[in-house]
Amino acid sequence: MKNSLYFDEVSSESFIKETSIETGSVGFYNLPEQKIDKILEFAKSVKHKNVVVIGIGGSSLGAEAIYSFLNSKNHYDKKLLFLDTTDPIVIENRLASIDINSTLFMIISKSGTTVESISILKYLDEKRKFDRDNLIVITDKGSPLEKFGESRNLNIFHIPNNVGGRYSVLSVVGLVPLAVIGINIKELLKGAKELKERFFSEKDNHILAKKSTYYSKISEQYSSNCLFSYSEVFRGFNSWYVQLWAESLGKKQIHSTMNVGLTPIGLIGPTDQHSFLQLIMEGKADKTVTVLKIKDFGTDISVPDISLPYLEKLDIANNIKFADLINLQAESTIEALDKIGVPLDVITLESIGEKSIGELIYYYELLTALVARQLDINAYDQPGVELGKIILKDKMAKS
Amino acid sequence: MKNSLYFDEVSSESFIKETSIETGSVGFYNLPEQKIDKILEFAKSVKHKNVVVIGIGGSSLGAEAIYSFLNSKNHYDKKLLFLDTTDPIVIENRLASIDINSTLFMIISKSGTTVESISILKYLDEKRKFDRDNLIVITDKGSPLEKFGESRNLNIFHIPNNVGGRYSVLSVVGLVPLAVIGINIKELLKGAKELKERFFSEKDNHILAKKSTYYSKISEQYSSNCLFSYSEVFRGFNSWYVQLWAESLGKKQIHSTMNVGLTPIGLIGPTDQHSFLQLIMEGKADKTVTVLKIKDFGTDISVPDISLPYLEKLDIANNIKFADLINLQAESTIEALDKIGVPLDVITLESIGEKSIGELIYYYELLTALVARQLDINAYDQPGVELGKIILKDKMAKS
Repeated sequence: MKNSLYFDEVSSESFIKETSIETGSVGFYNLPEQKIDKILEFAKSVKHKNVVVIGIGGSSLGAEAIYSFLNSKNHYDKKLLFLDTTDPIVIENRLASIDINSTLFMIISKSGTTVESISILKYLDEKRKFDRDNLIVITDKGSPLEKFGESRNLNIFHIPNNVGGRYSVLSVVGLVPLAVIGINIKELLKGAKELKERFFSEKDNHILAKKSTYYSKISEQYSSNCLFSYSEVFRGFNSWYVQLWAESLGKKQIHSTMNVGLTPIGLIGPTDQHSFLQLIMEGKADKTVTVLKIKDFGTDISVPDISLPYLEKLDIANNIKFADLINLQAESTIEALDKIGVPLDVITLESIGEKSIGELIYYYELLTALVARQLDINAYDQPGVELGKIILKDKMAKS
Repeated sequence: MKNSLYFDEVSSESFIKETSIETGSVGFYNLPEQKIDKILEFAKSVKHKNVVVIGIGGSSLGAEAIYSFLNSKNHYDKKLLFLDTTDPIVIENRLASIDINSTLFMIISKSGTTVESISILKYLDEKRKFDRDNLIVITDKGSPLEKFGESRNLNIFHIPNNVGGRYSVLSVVGLVPLAVIGINIKELLKGAKELKERFFSEKDNHILAKKSTYYSKISEQYSSNCLFSYSEVFRGFNSWYVQLWAESLGKKQIHSTMNVGLTPIGLIGPTDQHSFLQLIMEGKADKTVTVLKIKDFGTDISVPDISLPYLEKLDIANNIKFADLINLQAESTIEALDKIGVPLDVITLESIGEKSIGELIYYYELLTALVARQLDINAYDQPGVELGKIILKDKMAKS
């Protein structure tokens, strides 16, 4: 991963020591060093053709982000699907697309009481009684879902207690489904570990500089961060980033009653150059931009060296690889945004591989934790979603 | 379509007369009344199994929005695909998923000189020389692409001159591909026409009230509008809305040099209840919310009346249809947001059908036009994207 800053670096007061202390109580920091033997052993034993994750929010977005990134060439033998909504159309379509008899289901819920996921579990259990051969459970130790799993003699994987849902992709929550379909989770963790080491050994202060800049300007002017990702393979990653950023950074401050927040916006280039870019260029100057790129797309298809009558002016693109064309488009956007003074940074991944996405995931978790501390908010809770849950329970009881 | 407002109606000074005058020069207003005989005749003649649209931004987002909404049950005989990016991975994967020999391609570009689309056209033309049997052209009269089409004796459909790209979905840009795969475009236009008539006969002032509220508060506080759509079938519609809103409403004012803008944010429920909702509830109070719902999902699957050991508390959802569950979730979000004073309105579509989406499309085009006039900006240009295009040309010439 290569990072470029398009703003002056703010001298970064040492957050690193304080962050080191937090690693004692917040679990995600230490996931790169976890033992994965049991996961690998289980993955090897799975012979099913399809894997379906039943999980919503933090229980599915992370694995979806990594899978859709790495499966860009549709090259895995097993198919991975997600039942991540109560939308009946999605439930019916996704189930219709697979043979349910050669499918391993995984129910993932940290609390073990997520109404969406348990309702889908029941819907499926009625069709084909679940047992050890077709369902596994991933949940907190001691949850009601764990006890259900024990009652059916299922394989159970425990989520570390101190790892929150949206920070759990590098725990069993993400690793188990990903390993089962054949993704190299060792390399994934290696990428995360390298990023971690660069940060704690102070060899990479890109994250600190971003944290300081975005924070120092937020109160004055910049309330949104656009992640402008130049490839469709990032669509899942964008959704993961939106959850991480929105749910971690929209909060009341710890030492005041003020509401603060940074709004995440996920964009895909070049499509959104023909859409959202106009607003960044000429709307209110309240947005910072992070451009996310891939150096090596692993494909050489290019614009052929031919002329079409009356379209000769477009021959300017002849012989350019499409991978280079999309990156030239990214660079043009960067140059245009920089010209008008939009706070800007660029992340370039080496390739579409496990190590690159592992680095990127850890980079964003770390950045979010640092920004939250600077904003004086708790990055790990989500009190604002409780009211809706209470109202829903009431409505369900009455219906 | 049913609309509910959760804020006091602002007495609406008559914008209707002014808007009537605009219908003389701005083309999208009059699309519901266009003649479609030629489109229907052409659609009937197409025997290909697949249709691929080569087009980006306004040339593809509209048809994609309608197709992904209506194709929720994957029930059309023909498959519709979009080549809407220079991303080599997308180009390779989408082409690999179809038999190119039973495919009708449609190149859509208003200017006729879109570098992304023409480059893809050349890539395909090298593989299999295009002719009248496998390619049609949709473009402005007199464009270089029209002339290319004439040189190959292709079928050509003209985009009305005074209809801009992002307002063109109800013109040939959207109607031709949609009609070819079997969508009832007559019903689509009927929905648009009914909405139009309700507005101009002053029987529906929901749009005016929204325009006034969003505008009257924007300068003080609310800079973003979240479209919280409760079904995955709206994912394409959300992208269309984001383009329409961002590219139309992020501008310098006409009678000043001030930059203004409203930031569109597309959300999908219930997924984003486990993500973005926290930020709306407890972040900076700078967001208005529009909840988009479907009354009749056309499917009856429900949570079965069974108990799972240790999970009996979740029996609260038993016997509830998933379609009702997702709508209860929407109503819970509405109630929670209303409780904390978020400016809010609700749009409920009757069903997943042509008429409903036609209404919705026209509703948003009209709303955007009204908000733009109130903001004193030109809703129909996009000067902010030109700089990036100039830089790209320069970079391509040098590469």
